[in-house]
Amino acid sequence: MTGLFEHATAVQRRGTRRAVTEADSASFDATVQPGWDIGGNANGGYLLAIAARAMVEVTRRPPLTVTAHYLAPAPAGACTVDVALVRAGRRTATAIASLRQDDRERGGAGDREIIRVLGTFAEQSQDGSELVAGAPPDLPPYEDCVEPALPHEGPRPALNERLAVRLRPGDDGFRDGRPTGTGEMAGWFAFADERPVDAVGLLLVADAFAPAVFNTGLPVAWVPTLELTVHVRGVPAPGPLRCVFRTRFVHGGLLEEDGEVWDARDRLVAQSRQLALTPR
Amino acid sequence: MTGLFEHATAVQRRGTRRAVTEADSASFDATVQPGWDIGGNANGGYLLAIAARAMVEVTRRPPLTVTAHYLAPAPAGACTVDVALVRAGRRTATAIASLRQDDRERGGAGDREIIRVLGTFAEQSQDGSELVAGAPPDLPPYEDCVEPALPHEGPRPALNERLAVRLRPGDDGFRDGRPTGTGEMAGWFAFADERPVDAVGLLLVADAFAPAVFNTGLPVAWVPTLELTVHVRGVPAPGPLRCVFRTRFVHGGLLEEDGEVWDARDRLVAQSRQLALTPR
Repeated sequence: MTGLFEHATAVQRRGTRRAVTEADSASFDATVQPGWDIGGNANGGYLLAIAARAMVEVTRRPPLTVTAHYLAPAPAGACTVDVALVRAGRRTATAIASLRQDDRERGGAGDREIIRVLGTFAEQSQDGSELVAGAPPDLPPYEDCVEPALPHEGPRPALNERLAVRLRPGDDGFRDGRPTGTGEMAGWFAFADERPVDAVGLLLVADAFAPAVFNTGLPVAWVPTLELTVHVRGVPAPGPLRCVFRTRFVHGGLLEEDGEVWDARDRLVAQSRQLALTPR
Repeated sequence: MTGLFEHATAVQRRGTRRAVTEADSASFDATVQPGWDIGGNANGGYLLAIAARAMVEVTRRPPLTVTAHYLAPAPAGACTVDVALVRAGRRTATAIASLRQDDRERGGAGDREIIRVLGTFAEQSQDGSELVAGAPPDLPPYEDCVEPALPHEGPRPALNERLAVRLRPGDDGFRDGRPTGTGEMAGWFAFADERPVDAVGLLLVADAFAPAVFNTGLPVAWVPTLELTVHVRGVPAPGPLRCVFRTRFVHGGLLEEDGEVWDARDRLVAQSRQLALTPR
């Protein structure tokens, strides 16, 4: 059985499979599924995951470091991912991808680019030295954390049906005008269907929480991402992931948000950083 | 008069200038100059700066967030930068670039890609909210810091002629087998010719210090960069810049290095993060 996330990020190669020596570029059909959005625009980590699935097909390796630049919002609907291999080495392979939608039904010119992605792909290794100058965020047990974004009235947001995020108690207070005063948002990440989180799933995790800046109390209304980079640092062990996102510097209409994702074995499995705009 | 860095990163557009409506891609000639290298291979931040100069020509804006993936080392010599505009909006413009060298003289097949770069370019803005949850590194005055990488014998490294980096006393002890024990490297950055550091110069700053991991005492012999992302967060005020680089997590043959660059007015002007390999 395919998990919801695997299904929602599935890509289908166009045309017949080419010979290996010609496999340095390919186009894929995919669908931006409803229910992975915030107010009708698909979540940025979800879009990155779709593009990465296509890049995995071309590089034949899982993501190691990927950077997406966000060009236009994406409603639910069909999309195309064009992937070109940049370089394939012994351990790593680098590729570039473009996720596009036909926007004629919405009055556009036809071919609208949504995100451009540059990434290097490689299996995780067990080699070498170890240093851990950090620790997972100190969270209450999953059961004692709080479901995010539950509206006071109206339907339950669709993303809550797909993800089983739980926030550290208090980190959700910004919704009622009680921000913590610190640019930090922490909690647990899991898929609602309890499927394991793979390397592509970590790209979604990196963008699945409410913006940390909402806990600063600054008058920032929304936080459109310009660029998101995720480093995959390990394959998550089974079980919910502990996540923390921090914003330390807001100025010039911009902020950074740094994320850490830790697995059940207390291992750092991803680091993320995004640069976002701060419209009032 | 052109500064040494401007000269060393100069790009020359190939062919005649096209009309604005056709200016969405262009090729540039440039030169990887000798003396911006470590042991014969050009510094990664320097290579990124050359590519960014060409991207500035196409986007007509300074860099805001740029990511480079490092594909092959570059010796001194001619190079080509191909730039394609991805999207130009009102404030930002996104472009992709490929820096290549002809490696036939070194027994290669001809056209070797050195770095692939994806970036969004925009002028800095003064708008909006402010949060500063951080401070510049606490450094002794420039004059009391120490010149890095001076060999015990032999010629002075060429990069020391071009840069006027000064390390926090003690942070250079790793060269004599006395690492501080903390994955941190801090100091001052300036050009030797005292030219101001612009947004493109900040890309060099982000890769101009010895790796922070050298102060951990771990058996890491060198630190080849896979990917480097720099966020330009301000235009530096005149004067030397205070920089700090930190590595907190080393495992699976990889490390991250996070950088902060602060100007003379105590303003954060750049953040950087790279993912690098950790061969013994």
